[in-house]
Amino acid sequence: MHGLLFYGLYEQLTAQGDKVRSLKTAKADKADVDAAIQLLLKLKVDYKEVTGQDYKAGCPPSGTAVSNDRQSENGGEEDTVDPWNVATNSAKGVDYDKLIVRFGSSKIDQELVDRIEKVSGQKPHRFLRRGIFFSHRDMNQVLDAYEKQKSFYLYTGRGPSSQAMHVGHLIPFVFTKWLQDVFDIPLVIQLTDDEKYLWKDLSLEDCHRFAEENAKDIIACGFDVNKTFIFSDLDYMGSSPEFYRNVVKVQKHVTFNQVKGIFGFSDSDCIGKISFPAIQAAPAFSSSFPQIFKGRKDVQCLIPCAIDQDPYFRMTRDVAPRIGYPKPALLHSTFFPALQGAQTKMSASDANSSIFLTDTPKQIKNKVNKHAFSGGKDTIEEHREQGGNPDIDVAFMYLTFFMEDDEQLEKIRQDYTSGILLTGELKKMLIETLQPMITAHQENRKNVTDEMVKQFMTPRPLNFNF
Amino acid sequence: MHGLLFYGLYEQLTAQGDKVRSLKTAKADKADVDAAIQLLLKLKVDYKEVTGQDYKAGCPPSGTAVSNDRQSENGGEEDTVDPWNVATNSAKGVDYDKLIVRFGSSKIDQELVDRIEKVSGQKPHRFLRRGIFFSHRDMNQVLDAYEKQKSFYLYTGRGPSSQAMHVGHLIPFVFTKWLQDVFDIPLVIQLTDDEKYLWKDLSLEDCHRFAEENAKDIIACGFDVNKTFIFSDLDYMGSSPEFYRNVVKVQKHVTFNQVKGIFGFSDSDCIGKISFPAIQAAPAFSSSFPQIFKGRKDVQCLIPCAIDQDPYFRMTRDVAPRIGYPKPALLHSTFFPALQGAQTKMSASDANSSIFLTDTPKQIKNKVNKHAFSGGKDTIEEHREQGGNPDIDVAFMYLTFFMEDDEQLEKIRQDYTSGILLTGELKKMLIETLQPMITAHQENRKNVTDEMVKQFMTPRPLNFNF
Repeated sequence: MHGLLFYGLYEQLTAQGDKVRSLKTAKADKADVDAAIQLLLKLKVDYKEVTGQDYKAGCPPSGTAVSNDRQSENGGEEDTVDPWNVATNSAKGVDYDKLIVRFGSSKIDQELVDRIEKVSGQKPHRFLRRGIFFSHRDMNQVLDAYEKQKSFYLYTGRGPSSQAMHVGHLIPFVFTKWLQDVFDIPLVIQLTDDEKYLWKDLSLEDCHRFAEENAKDIIACGFDVNKTFIFSDLDYMGSSPEFYRNVVKVQKHVTFNQVKGIFGFSDSDCIGKISFPAIQAAPAFSSSFPQIFKGRKDVQCLIPCAIDQDPYFRMTRDVAPRIGYPKPALLHSTFFPALQGAQTKMSASDANSSIFLTDTPKQIKNKVNKHAFSGGKDTIEEHREQGGNPDIDVAFMYLTFFMEDDEQLEKIRQDYTSGILLTGELKKMLIETLQPMITAHQENRKNVTDEMVKQFMTPRPLNFNF
Repeated sequence: MHGLLFYGLYEQLTAQGDKVRSLKTAKADKADVDAAIQLLLKLKVDYKEVTGQDYKAGCPPSGTAVSNDRQSENGGEEDTVDPWNVATNSAKGVDYDKLIVRFGSSKIDQELVDRIEKVSGQKPHRFLRRGIFFSHRDMNQVLDAYEKQKSFYLYTGRGPSSQAMHVGHLIPFVFTKWLQDVFDIPLVIQLTDDEKYLWKDLSLEDCHRFAEENAKDIIACGFDVNKTFIFSDLDYMGSSPEFYRNVVKVQKHVTFNQVKGIFGFSDSDCIGKISFPAIQAAPAFSSSFPQIFKGRKDVQCLIPCAIDQDPYFRMTRDVAPRIGYPKPALLHSTFFPALQGAQTKMSASDANSSIFLTDTPKQIKNKVNKHAFSGGKDTIEEHREQGGNPDIDVAFMYLTFFMEDDEQLEKIRQDYTSGILLTGELKKMLIETLQPMITAHQENRKNVTDEMVKQFMTPRPLNFNF
């Protein structure tokens, strides 16, 4: 149900409206007119259901982004999810089931989790076991091919808007590393420093520096330099004619109308923003990396990313067959909640909204105790009596991301719900989980030298035979 | 008077219209209302004068391109000149004096020609002596700086839409070579193979191949490999991070509204077209070529080109100061007429509209005799009596481009006007001028090896110290 489909439905509706009018003008048979009107009404209901807005002649839908403006006008309750905005009114966070319907992706159900386990021969990552990666496109096709010895590659990325990364930023990388380990496949990581320059009030030099700093945090997740290529757009575009060729191919096959529908761009946006989506699309095609894939253009790509990045890849999947490439498959994650609650994504610009990868143990303790939104009751007596609500409790949510032991986590959930476990005790468990994790990350990062960054970021063959 | 200015005037007019209405609604003092109306009427006159069209509320001007649609609707007589269309109703060709006013450039007058002679110490090229390069921007500033030992560089280019080049395509290169020779400065030549892929129904591979083929014809003009860098966008974008950085800088500072105004793009254009103008802009900044200018970003650029390319460089000049670069200066040429007459540019796709660089002496003879539009009279008797009209005679026009001797050309003009010279005799003179010229070009081109093309197209330092 992506932006292009919204638009298709819109066009269908417009055509049907024209048909009704012309039948009436021509004084056509009443039965024909009635049938045409019935179809028109049905299309209007479909349209409302899919786009969350009333059909209005002459006003094409603006895809996912549209729910933003329209819904706030209407006081509606649709969540806003696009690459630049995530907002919901629910303390539980975004309604991901609804998002699957709206985006037209597929749910990662138990059957698929079991299948990943079977094919990989490994216990599924906790992000899979717990529905943190909850949605996909074409994952079964990737597994089918893999079972027939047809390999694939991973592509993920990050927009380096500042030097500071928070724990939420690690989610796609932690999961991608697991996928790489269990499937033993190449990985490319795009740092969109050009995008950040286009969107933010930052210099090119700063964006590029942030890319290199962020690369250190990414490398600290433990990636293998023989299997992983990290690149800054500003550098790689200028060192790979094949990458630019794929960017231009995508740019030829996407119109302004389409990016307007998918991303909500307007006439006053700069031409850099308007053409950028092609740059995020191009790494999904193996021919963008001839040094890795020896010029092969048919190696399937799997993209683990947060669901807000899906608009880029809906567009990519739409273009792929028209330029002779396979569509990338996707695995979508939920958002990592801010300390203040799951209504919004964390923000790198608000120090208190997140646990940063540079925080000291003391800062972690203070932030969790002071800012983590609690699902507990106001007094100990009330809490013991009525229990807490883990579904809106940020400390509990964070534990679902970072605590490995399923049984321990389930016991915490039950104890918190029943009132045995107090908010302070729950927060203490989170603090004790985060502190060693962040300290270990900082140790790892300290060992990442400029030389290593350079190695990871140099276009070169990886240890795979294609 | 470029597209952005058109738009500024349009906005001013719209605001003034609003003011008049609100004064009337508020039943303001009659004198105030009258004054506002007077200003409104004056702005409408200015608008008509500058844009060549009537002001219409809600319809912003689309720069140079607009005269196209609007004028044909109105049956008006404004010439159409933009990078993709050149059309006029006059057999004498486009009215270049009007174009100077419309584009807001400056006429190359005798004083400037004399100054170029003085500064360069060389007799001005026939294209300057005869007004073929007729318009400029900031040429005096370039000469001022040159006199103070401040060097500059030349930038010109070609869109490689086919293998076949015609004599008209040589004009900017012949003139650029002369400029390079007399000023002894670096030259960069852009082959926009990406543009041709975006605009035409061609494959990337074909466009790139045409770029290399066209490079051979360009090299055959006699350029010095130690002073000249020729590049294909598809290659150079992927081999110069500095070039891409400048492209992104321009893309950040130009909105869709602006390119819509300047180039007439619409919502159904692909995002590649919309962002392409930045790629034609970037070579006008010396930091796009660090290998030549050692990272200097303040070396002034002079662009010799046909006037239809001016919209790109109006945009470039608008952006330059906002990203900390000097504005490029320009020298504009008239169009080389088609054999059929000066109403339109030559077309590489119509074999009979042009003399191609691959034509045999016999083909040249036949084409000139058969297709060159004549300003002569229908019968010899009439012609002897009334004389011919050299202003609309294509054979004579071609001689103004290619015959070096001013006195000989002037005598031909007089003899043709008086009727002493017949059309057949005039055509014979042209044939005898073109045949050895094209044969020599073919000889030169034959000597251009793939190795030489590679040398010219390799990013490298040139023989200049910056």
